[in-house]
Amino acid sequence: MGFSDVDTLAINTIRVLAVDATFNANSGHPGAPMGMAPVAHVLFNKFMKFNPKNPKWLNRDRFVLSNGHGCMLQYALLHLYGYALSIDDLKAFRHVDSITPGHPEAHDTPGIEVTTGPLGQGISNAVGLAIAQAHTAATFNKPGFDIIDNYTYAFLGDGCLQEGISSEACSLAGHLQLGNLIAVWDDNHITIDGNTNVSFTEDVVKRYDAYGWHVVTVGNGDSDLDSITAAIKACQEVKDKPSLIQLKTTIGFGSTKQGTHDVHGSPLKIDDVKQLKAKFGFNPEQSFVVPQEVYDLCHKASAEGAAKEEEWNKLFAKYGEQFKAEHDDLIRRQKGDLPEGWEKVLPLHTPADPAVASRKLSENIINKIYEVLPELVGGSADLTGSNLTRWKGAVDFQPPSTGLGDYSGRYIRYGVREHGMGAIMNGLAAYGTIIPFGGTFLNFVSYAAGAVRLSALSQVRAIWVATHDSIGLGEDGPTHQPIETLAHFRALPNCMVWRPADGNETSAAYYVALTSKHTPSIIALSRQNLPQLTGSVIEKGIKGGYVLQEQEGADITLVSTGSEVGICVDAVKELAEKHNLKARVVSIPCFEVFDAQPKDYRLSVLPDGIPSLSVEVMSTMGWERYTHEQFGLNRFGASGAYKDVYKKFEFTPEGIAKRAVATVNFWKDVPNIRSPINRAFEQII
Amino acid sequence: MGFSDVDTLAINTIRVLAVDATFNANSGHPGAPMGMAPVAHVLFNKFMKFNPKNPKWLNRDRFVLSNGHGCMLQYALLHLYGYALSIDDLKAFRHVDSITPGHPEAHDTPGIEVTTGPLGQGISNAVGLAIAQAHTAATFNKPGFDIIDNYTYAFLGDGCLQEGISSEACSLAGHLQLGNLIAVWDDNHITIDGNTNVSFTEDVVKRYDAYGWHVVTVGNGDSDLDSITAAIKACQEVKDKPSLIQLKTTIGFGSTKQGTHDVHGSPLKIDDVKQLKAKFGFNPEQSFVVPQEVYDLCHKASAEGAAKEEEWNKLFAKYGEQFKAEHDDLIRRQKGDLPEGWEKVLPLHTPADPAVASRKLSENIINKIYEVLPELVGGSADLTGSNLTRWKGAVDFQPPSTGLGDYSGRYIRYGVREHGMGAIMNGLAAYGTIIPFGGTFLNFVSYAAGAVRLSALSQVRAIWVATHDSIGLGEDGPTHQPIETLAHFRALPNCMVWRPADGNETSAAYYVALTSKHTPSIIALSRQNLPQLTGSVIEKGIKGGYVLQEQEGADITLVSTGSEVGICVDAVKELAEKHNLKARVVSIPCFEVFDAQPKDYRLSVLPDGIPSLSVEVMSTMGWERYTHEQFGLNRFGASGAYKDVYKKFEFTPEGIAKRAVATVNFWKDVPNIRSPINRAFEQII
Repeated sequence: MGFSDVDTLAINTIRVLAVDATFNANSGHPGAPMGMAPVAHVLFNKFMKFNPKNPKWLNRDRFVLSNGHGCMLQYALLHLYGYALSIDDLKAFRHVDSITPGHPEAHDTPGIEVTTGPLGQGISNAVGLAIAQAHTAATFNKPGFDIIDNYTYAFLGDGCLQEGISSEACSLAGHLQLGNLIAVWDDNHITIDGNTNVSFTEDVVKRYDAYGWHVVTVGNGDSDLDSITAAIKACQEVKDKPSLIQLKTTIGFGSTKQGTHDVHGSPLKIDDVKQLKAKFGFNPEQSFVVPQEVYDLCHKASAEGAAKEEEWNKLFAKYGEQFKAEHDDLIRRQKGDLPEGWEKVLPLHTPADPAVASRKLSENIINKIYEVLPELVGGSADLTGSNLTRWKGAVDFQPPSTGLGDYSGRYIRYGVREHGMGAIMNGLAAYGTIIPFGGTFLNFVSYAAGAVRLSALSQVRAIWVATHDSIGLGEDGPTHQPIETLAHFRALPNCMVWRPADGNETSAAYYVALTSKHTPSIIALSRQNLPQLTGSVIEKGIKGGYVLQEQEGADITLVSTGSEVGICVDAVKELAEKHNLKARVVSIPCFEVFDAQPKDYRLSVLPDGIPSLSVEVMSTMGWERYTHEQFGLNRFGASGAYKDVYKKFEFTPEGIAKRAVATVNFWKDVPNIRSPINRAFEQII
Repeated sequence: MGFSDVDTLAINTIRVLAVDATFNANSGHPGAPMGMAPVAHVLFNKFMKFNPKNPKWLNRDRFVLSNGHGCMLQYALLHLYGYALSIDDLKAFRHVDSITPGHPEAHDTPGIEVTTGPLGQGISNAVGLAIAQAHTAATFNKPGFDIIDNYTYAFLGDGCLQEGISSEACSLAGHLQLGNLIAVWDDNHITIDGNTNVSFTEDVVKRYDAYGWHVVTVGNGDSDLDSITAAIKACQEVKDKPSLIQLKTTIGFGSTKQGTHDVHGSPLKIDDVKQLKAKFGFNPEQSFVVPQEVYDLCHKASAEGAAKEEEWNKLFAKYGEQFKAEHDDLIRRQKGDLPEGWEKVLPLHTPADPAVASRKLSENIINKIYEVLPELVGGSADLTGSNLTRWKGAVDFQPPSTGLGDYSGRYIRYGVREHGMGAIMNGLAAYGTIIPFGGTFLNFVSYAAGAVRLSALSQVRAIWVATHDSIGLGEDGPTHQPIETLAHFRALPNCMVWRPADGNETSAAYYVALTSKHTPSIIALSRQNLPQLTGSVIEKGIKGGYVLQEQEGADITLVSTGSEVGICVDAVKELAEKHNLKARVVSIPCFEVFDAQPKDYRLSVLPDGIPSLSVEVMSTMGWERYTHEQFGLNRFGASGAYKDVYKKFEFTPEGIAKRAVATVNFWKDVPNIRSPINRAFEQII
């Protein structure tokens, strides 16, 4: 099919660059790049649609390296095709502050779509990218205007296939009939522990067939470029199933240790490097060399990609003439901006409004914002009726053939697949036209910890609607009651954990979550009803923490979140009536946002001179940062009606008052009580 | 096959009890118990080997309800068969402090093997129980003495099948050819979101076939007891594959809303309850009624079980005569005691010993203890060479037919399946003859958060060998460098998080982890070399925190863990030489264990009158509990050589000294500095 010696040279150049960079870094994974260089070359040179000069072109094909440890493959490709990644960047591979870190990171490196390395994430992100493509196409394409028709390609290894997250995402991808998704499995029979036969002897082809995927096999992935080409073509033609190419390769192809796990995660030895270069026609004494004809071949493909974008730009301009609203909407979405005035639909509450569970308040918000934020695509991990994530009249994102919805639908039925959902949301957000949200119980966001971590690291706007946020869920008991969960995600950098106390704070949480382009959010919501509080307003809530109830000459500050804020308000009365103590109440619905406020403001909320007591029905860990004393639950909860559970653990006005009294007594001999906001030095950020 | 009307009555009694208990609790899941009552009855009455008077009989068959929300099924069975679970306990279903909580909890309720409810965990625990059985049998059985020959039965629903954790565990179970594992899939086509066709249309039978399972289908699970019996028999006869029975049932069988998701997670309405009772021949006006003939039928089976145990006891006594060592070892293991004097093999170090990575120190320990602790069964999630978890001469736990090991092998190749590994370890520990450990990178323990949580809640001794514990892993970069992980698991109740600083502390960590019968441990270990510290001894390390280096008239206490303790020691010199400040050094390798020490002791470690500074290269969250100021990393790390990364973030003697000086200055005007150990009131535990 028209492959020449230059193609072989290009493939070997990728291999040699991977060998050089890992050797130079004295660290890294040469094996996968060497094994997958042929399919990578064929894909990038003959199939992929992209323009290195504009890595963000909307209709580009997406490429995901799910086996992210093989990132020298991707870095080599980005360099060869003319992305802003120089040969010096390859030399800086795995060096501090380079754009070529040990695993691909989307936020720093041009041409990297999603952050991968933690196994199973990339292929699941790819499912999200493919859903996003299908949805965006169904929403925006018009007869004669196939504005959106890109593919998503993913490479993955045995490790990715073993991880449960990929099972979740791939099962869903099969159900969703995502014909735009083409995955290439590097079937090299090697993992870190040696041959895959020590633990991974399942029939992968049959499993993917069971998921409803189209599977093809290429027997010789090391050099049979024609078969690779034919396989990719065949996959492109299957429109109603995702495809998996089983590509049999030799890990570390060209090394004297090829086909063994010795080449998986360590650089080649110098002698091996030299023999490999000699074998491939390179000068064994030179490193980081790219033959000009390889650059030429790659740049030619890039130029064709640039021309395709040019063509697309013209088509899109024409589209704009006929469909101005859609055109402008698509441009707006890509910027990450929300439609002007959207926030006016956020519900406002007054203390006269009835007590409502914050999961229900969240539902009310979703029912308002879905209309003004067409980019919002939500779903639930099979807890729709509990999370209350589905707005009235929502259409499911489903293959039309199911009769259950269509691809323009904005509600995703994720199934009981929290980790998959998290990674799919990362892919949805990365596509550029969607703001994803997903519902589950707060306790089960932990199942998705690996994906949430990458939301934060890769700086995507993904929103978790995390209901049943405490022992307040009641009867389901300790297996479902979070204790450590808020501390966990509060400790995660660049992740907003919200726990609103009432309606206005819930609106504030959504406001900040939706307008924070580069930060994921977890919104923890109650199952039980919460009163609408005096002093709670959106403008204060969006600061992450504020004085809900001021009190002159206060003896103590009660600091709380979510469902306990209202109980603290009642405790204030108890303290006044029974103990002759004055208390002020502070609500901190989001640590991360509060921490970002100016110090003066934070000190006005948590001032010097007064002892403070935090009240939250879960681990006290982290509260010492804001308060002098902490009332929480450093044990597992209990199964029972929620009021009984709260009573058991003394989260009542009386129980809070008792501890407030103890706090005041304990601190009364301390002169000039210092607010914990005061610190000896600034943290590294 | 000999089923009578009494069998039908027994089945309907289970259904009615589930209906009554959920109605009485006004909460719970009647649907699954009603649908699975027939298979449950057949299994318990005709197949299961157990003695309700001794729920801990070693050779009992294990039963796991992976769809734990259906626990009224299990509670009803336990009651009917005479476990210590009364009709009053059923009436107390989902009430505070009952032994019948909202999901089954192993530590509180007799007859519950493992704690389930979080979906996918139970079936994965079952894989662990089956591995434990195979291993224990291979280790202890002798010709003529099949001491161990029990089965593990698991029920699971669609939700369990969708969760990735079950994919991981079941793939491994297939590889391991666990013929002693029989799972029953409640194929009722209903999840919370409605019909499974909204998100779960894969071919489950084909998938399990791909895993290497034996799969049979029962078309009518609602009433075809003969087919159910035949299916279980067929599965028992397949010795080299785990079995899955696809049991087609009607959720909420008997309700007017049977077959819909309305009966999944809410009690039946009163009219529905009454019609159901009338239909099944019960008095509609009475609740919690068990016909005597049902008790008789069930108690007969229990009596047979008791007789089987009696027989087994005789066999085991005879076994003891011939194989005294094995006999006594098995008894010892079941008590959870370790062999006397085992701890003498723990390596001791002196400061003269060379610097070694703590993962390597851990390997040295494993190489010592595997000989004296035959119950230790370890493995790694495909990071053996990095975690250093495999001792010299280890035999893999593998099906003999693979030629890679045998079932008496004590090293498990988990594959890249962290979450599955965590749940399998919980099953291994629950079996009663094994102490499991599993290796992965600390960052990827997060993938298994759901299982670790259940280790803690169900109080099992499972040990995570969590290497590459910080930015000190270097080049792999932020995707692999934990920041939030220690805070996460430190906030989890009943979970020990160890981060030893050197050899003696690593020995201390293993000592406490191995001797804590009811608490899991995560031992965080470095990739980089650590010096052997002056002042570190096992006896102090096992207190969780201690003064490594005392200093009279100290200006500051430096408090640290793991790899940073040695840098703090160097910072002491820097402070003395450059800043004329005296510093003492405290090491707190384990918060949880330190917290359990008497207050006097803790105050001697972190005394009043001196400001303190914590130093740990990850989230500072939680350190405010122990120290006045915190030096940590509340951002993601960086990819580079570890020394460069430490330098970038200033975790050097100079960087620490700089912050120590700031701390001393900041606190010098505060009279009577109070140690954070002092608290106004005690936490609820």
